[in-house]
Amino acid sequence: MKTLLMFAAAAAATPAPKPALAPSEIVAAAPKGDWVAIEPSDLLVMDFASGKRVVIQLMPPPFSQGWVGNIRELAAAHWWDGTSVNRVQDNYVVQWGDATEKKVLPSGLVTVAESEYETDVVNEPIRRPVEIQYNQNPFVVKLLRLDSYSGRAGFSAGWPIAVSFSTKARLKSPAYWPVHCYGMVGVGRDMPPNTGTGAELYTVIGHAPRHLDRNIALVGRVISGIENLSSLPRGTGPLGFYEKPEERTTIKSIRIGTDVADLPRFEYLSTESGSFAKYADARANRRDPFFIRPAGGADICNIPVPVRVVK
Amino acid sequence: MKTLLMFAAAAAATPAPKPALAPSEIVAAAPKGDWVAIEPSDLLVMDFASGKRVVIQLMPPPFSQGWVGNIRELAAAHWWDGTSVNRVQDNYVVQWGDATEKKVLPSGLVTVAESEYETDVVNEPIRRPVEIQYNQNPFVVKLLRLDSYSGRAGFSAGWPIAVSFSTKARLKSPAYWPVHCYGMVGVGRDMPPNTGTGAELYTVIGHAPRHLDRNIALVGRVISGIENLSSLPRGTGPLGFYEKPEERTTIKSIRIGTDVADLPRFEYLSTESGSFAKYADARANRRDPFFIRPAGGADICNIPVPVRVVK
Repeated sequence: MKTLLMFAAAAAATPAPKPALAPSEIVAAAPKGDWVAIEPSDLLVMDFASGKRVVIQLMPPPFSQGWVGNIRELAAAHWWDGTSVNRVQDNYVVQWGDATEKKVLPSGLVTVAESEYETDVVNEPIRRPVEIQYNQNPFVVKLLRLDSYSGRAGFSAGWPIAVSFSTKARLKSPAYWPVHCYGMVGVGRDMPPNTGTGAELYTVIGHAPRHLDRNIALVGRVISGIENLSSLPRGTGPLGFYEKPEERTTIKSIRIGTDVADLPRFEYLSTESGSFAKYADARANRRDPFFIRPAGGADICNIPVPVRVVK
Repeated sequence: MKTLLMFAAAAAATPAPKPALAPSEIVAAAPKGDWVAIEPSDLLVMDFASGKRVVIQLMPPPFSQGWVGNIRELAAAHWWDGTSVNRVQDNYVVQWGDATEKKVLPSGLVTVAESEYETDVVNEPIRRPVEIQYNQNPFVVKLLRLDSYSGRAGFSAGWPIAVSFSTKARLKSPAYWPVHCYGMVGVGRDMPPNTGTGAELYTVIGHAPRHLDRNIALVGRVISGIENLSSLPRGTGPLGFYEKPEERTTIKSIRIGTDVADLPRFEYLSTESGSFAKYADARANRRDPFFIRPAGGADICNIPVPVRVVK
């Protein structure tokens, strides 16, 4: 008569015959070839004095590369060492950087234009799945779904991407941009036309604040250790800033993955793979035994791209 | 040259002439008559030994009243006193109840049918805004928007509600159900057809897990103190359950608001008011000075219903 207390896994009590798989089971069964290695050179590793660690995957082209380049320079200069987490706003963001606002930035950082919040490098008719050419590389957005913000959203090379065909011209040349899902990392900025340098960063710790899309640069996502940010005490000042310096969590170091000795290897489930298509369908239509009604849909941020540590 | 570090408020640097208001400014300017008092008899107050408090507003008819009735009985019996928060899963839920699974439930709890996860009491043609009759009370869902899950979602009496016209029969008699937004409170259960009693409760602390809609009962939402749950250390066991008893947070008491001496008065912004319509529009289309591009849309869970404490 006692409840099991659990409601997300179905492993314990699966009835015969052959129940549908849960999304986590589809991911566990994905063949090795459906996983893509994440290069250490594309990782940003934030270490706290406590020994806790947060690992961020930087965003690939064609998005936000000006800011990503600045972030690489800031890490190489060890600029963040001794800075801190200064803001924790519930159901919104955790933000880190220089609380004194006096630390001199490295020379050589670029100023990025607001136009870089989205990209529209396409000049060919839309096909399904959407394919666009970026330099020599095809850029494909797959598994497009209805989106409350842009009209359509899907996945490309492991990232959630919005696609807008909002005007007649856009039918031939849609706009594309990365979206503010849980765990995505963005660039704090001053009032426009300021676009931020990348020295002030935040990550989303609540329901996707998609109104920030195309208004702030997204430069990556947390792939390990988000709980070391999301469970921090909330700040009690305006916007969740800490009111007292001693409330801040000091950052020991932030480095690019290639400069970190003890980093495991990470892989993401290819969003172009058959396993991911099955996983996305199962996120939208849970048929595993715990569920009695498949939802019939899912928003882009309720289909997080699976990432794993390789043993 | 220093960034302000902030990116959600625009109060500090508003240019002339008359900038558009931010959602928070629209709420602050709402007239007294647009606010609705929440009865203490509809509040569930959870107190921890630390002095921290979480206040939950229970869901009104026509939704989930069987489970809500059980919760009132459990609170009256002081059943939760000495139980604990046992599960904290990042970007998902915090869950509390009897970790021993041995505590005897009060007699008189009802078993609620799965059909109660949604309601379809309508027998009249759909109008816009949608109006349905529940007992003697008109039930209205306003401000319907596109929804990735149900087709449409809007607000009724202060709550986010999905509306489905999925079949021909449903055009005359749509299905309605409350949705799993951040802070909503639901009923943990065992495998179906078990529907849970209400003794095991959880709240959402991440991106809206809308696949749980119509699969688990929703019975309320946290209106104060969510940070006392969302910032708890994450559990390291399966599904975020704590592995050691000492990791649990003990619940001192859970009472209905009428049995709590020092409770402030709470009000929500009427979702039928002009202020709320303006607020919802501004959430979907930020035009205040920080923003350079209005989103053009918002999902139902990115329009949280404002609640305030009355001084």
